[in-house]
Amino acid sequence: MKATITLLTDFGTLDPYVAEMKAVILSICPHAFIVDISHEVEKFNVRMGAFLLAVAAPYFPAGTIHVGVVDPGVGSERRPIAVETDRSVYVGPDNGLLIPAAMHEGIRNVYELNNRSLQRNVISSTFHGRDVFAPVAAHLLSGARTEDVGRKIMNYVKLSFMNVTFERRGVNGEILHIDGFGNIITNISYEHMGKLDLSGKLALRFRAKCFPLRFVGTYSELGRNELGLIAGSHGFLEIACREASAAKKVGAKIGDRLGVGTA
Amino acid sequence: MKATITLLTDFGTLDPYVAEMKAVILSICPHAFIVDISHEVEKFNVRMGAFLLAVAAPYFPAGTIHVGVVDPGVGSERRPIAVETDRSVYVGPDNGLLIPAAMHEGIRNVYELNNRSLQRNVISSTFHGRDVFAPVAAHLLSGARTEDVGRKIMNYVKLSFMNVTFERRGVNGEILHIDGFGNIITNISYEHMGKLDLSGKLALRFRAKCFPLRFVGTYSELGRNELGLIAGSHGFLEIACREASAAKKVGAKIGDRLGVGTA
Amino acid sequence: MKATITLLTDFGTLDPYVAEMKAVILSICPHAFIVDISHEVEKFNVRMGAFLLAVAAPYFPAGTIHVGVVDPGVGSERRPIAVETDRSVYVGPDNGLLIPAAMHEGIRNVYELNNRSLQRNVISSTFHGRDVFAPVAAHLLSGARTEDVGRKIMNYVKLSFMNVTFERRGVNGEILHIDGFGNIITNISYEHMGKLDLSGKLALRFRAKCFPLRFVGTYSELGRNELGLIAGSHGFLEIACREASAAKKVGAKIGDRLGVGTA
Repeated sequence: MKATITLLTDFGTLDPYVAEMKAVILSICPHAFIVDISHEVEKFNVRMGAFLLAVAAPYFPAGTIHVGVVDPGVGSERRPIAVETDRSVYVGPDNGLLIPAAMHEGIRNVYELNNRSLQRNVISSTFHGRDVFAPVAAHLLSGARTEDVGRKIMNYVKLSFMNVTFERRGVNGEILHIDGFGNIITNISYEHMGKLDLSGKLALRFRAKCFPLRFVGTYSELGRNELGLIAGSHGFLEIACREASAAKKVGAKIGDRLGVGTA
Repeated sequence: MKATITLLTDFGTLDPYVAEMKAVILSICPHAFIVDISHEVEKFNVRMGAFLLAVAAPYFPAGTIHVGVVDPGVGSERRPIAVETDRSVYVGPDNGLLIPAAMHEGIRNVYELNNRSLQRNVISSTFHGRDVFAPVAAHLLSGARTEDVGRKIMNYVKLSFMNVTFERRGVNGEILHIDGFGNIITNISYEHMGKLDLSGKLALRFRAKCFPLRFVGTYSELGRNELGLIAGSHGFLEIACREASAAKKVGAKIGDRLGVGTA
Repeated sequence: MKATITLLTDFGTLDPYVAEMKAVILSICPHAFIVDISHEVEKFNVRMGAFLLAVAAPYFPAGTIHVGVVDPGVGSERRPIAVETDRSVYVGPDNGLLIPAAMHEGIRNVYELNNRSLQRNVISSTFHGRDVFAPVAAHLLSGARTEDVGRKIMNYVKLSFMNVTFERRGVNGEILHIDGFGNIITNISYEHMGKLDLSGKLALRFRAKCFPLRFVGTYSELGRNELGLIAGSHGFLEIACREASAAKKVGAKIGDRLGVGTA
């Protein structure tokens, strides 16, 4: 039986930090199969990390343990937690990082990791990924029960991407992510577009500017340099440019708000 | 029995796209062993991707399934294919990406992936890596026969690196790749150099300029700042500079043509 | 029984070099479990590679085989070696790269890799990672005995990080690494600080400049823009800045010397 564990951090791949987490996991659970989701989350950007984790998690087999470490508060009073859902367990800091992914699967219980016997003997104040989260995840993969990790808590930190608002001519939302191709990924779903006529002339409203936009099914329907609105592969609407960066074209950054509607 | 699958894409490692492909593979074939060849192919550069795949594939065990995704035409009419060779199967878009690697092993059959039962139920128009190629590859690894993936085709897109020409004083070829050390990897083989006296004075002809060149066995035979011609580790001639970037020194880019011959 | 092998190189992840090493390992030892420590060591920086390897190795299970390739002298007279310690084997070039990690575990024997039957039939002059080190490591993982790799040698190249000196007001050391967060990692340990009163006013002396410094337990105790001295997660003192790069703030580079002491 193969047991899958995923890692998502803002550690980058230059440093040996991710390898140390893997080493700790393998020392506890030699049959663990470790998959990297991303280690290039913008440093300390909990919201970006939460989005990437929420996007990738649904494709993993039931029973997967997900470890997320984007943790500006490491060593402070912020609590280490495990979130048990209907199909997986998430392990990481109590700062919202794990919540969108877990909510999507249905949160059963949240535990504070105060059972020190499942953690490394000496816990550094700067690297809980290696000393707390990795060993707890490995013990869960090796058969420890979720209720063994610590005491149940209710008041964990929430985080949501659901801040979409409606106006007469369209929908306003947030830029959740800009991918490596320069595609702008919003928190607006196809359903949010409601009664808008997508076959008509559309517009992207961004920072007091207005860009013409065409709803297309694939990137290759776009002309060179044309901005397209496309139902992305994760259920969100994306703004794309054919073989070019839409984000550069409009000057967008993660976290910016934008509007999509009729022109 | 361990089953190896390789991935080569232009997705980068910031985004969760590669992880989603791995998640789909593991959900279908839990004993898959996944090896990344590269995810840093220049976006949409099919020729560069084809070169990296052709270079790495021969070292993998027979029976390996290779998945390649550099796919500017995703969602358009370009077909998804599987290429069966004498020792492996290649899965990806029909745009030439898989062909140099496959030709090197001997192409037996090419199939269009039109058996939808081996693919994800819902296929996005922008991410066939996750929805088509990864599941087909995982089913092949789990025991599906190659002829089950779809109908046999003959008119697949070809791609070749064999555009080497000869002239009185030497050989003209193409820059297939510039590696992370700045080494210029050409499509010229040692055999191409034919009757040239490699112990004599050589020259690199590039963009109407002429650089002195010395044929050496190892990087460390070169003086600082000297350009060397070396039989690279993949059977092609390389232009190198000791502990420095030859590409920067001469201003070379992937795809440029160059000449090597007597000075 | 799962067998772990680690890889540390300066190859980067664009090129297929790391994948070729993995392919060679899997061809010899199909049950190998391969973990990347880092492939982003600065090109040819043996000292940086040695530090990253020494930092990560202790967390891996006993019996792990570590392969390190930062190898400016490839193809020259420098010897390929294997270093047997009390808990692992290190394989790589004889240039000091493997020594700090191995010394920490206790060096038993050092062997020159002159048994060609454990290496690839054809050995390129530029890629011993694939042709020499990877196959030897895979054979060791598959059960070859360390004494089979070649003849025992005594005069291998040494490398040490122990160049710490003391003065009246503090300690002088070296910057071993600057991590992705911009933390400055020194070769000064907590013990080196000896009788200094760490609760008092401290100073960082760097390039004839003097920066105020406060000893703290965690990053989050620091004010914005304040420089902190912190006992890092690997036993060395680090200079850190809260959610910012300490290295940028003071202009530090790997290899620079610095002093820490009373203000």
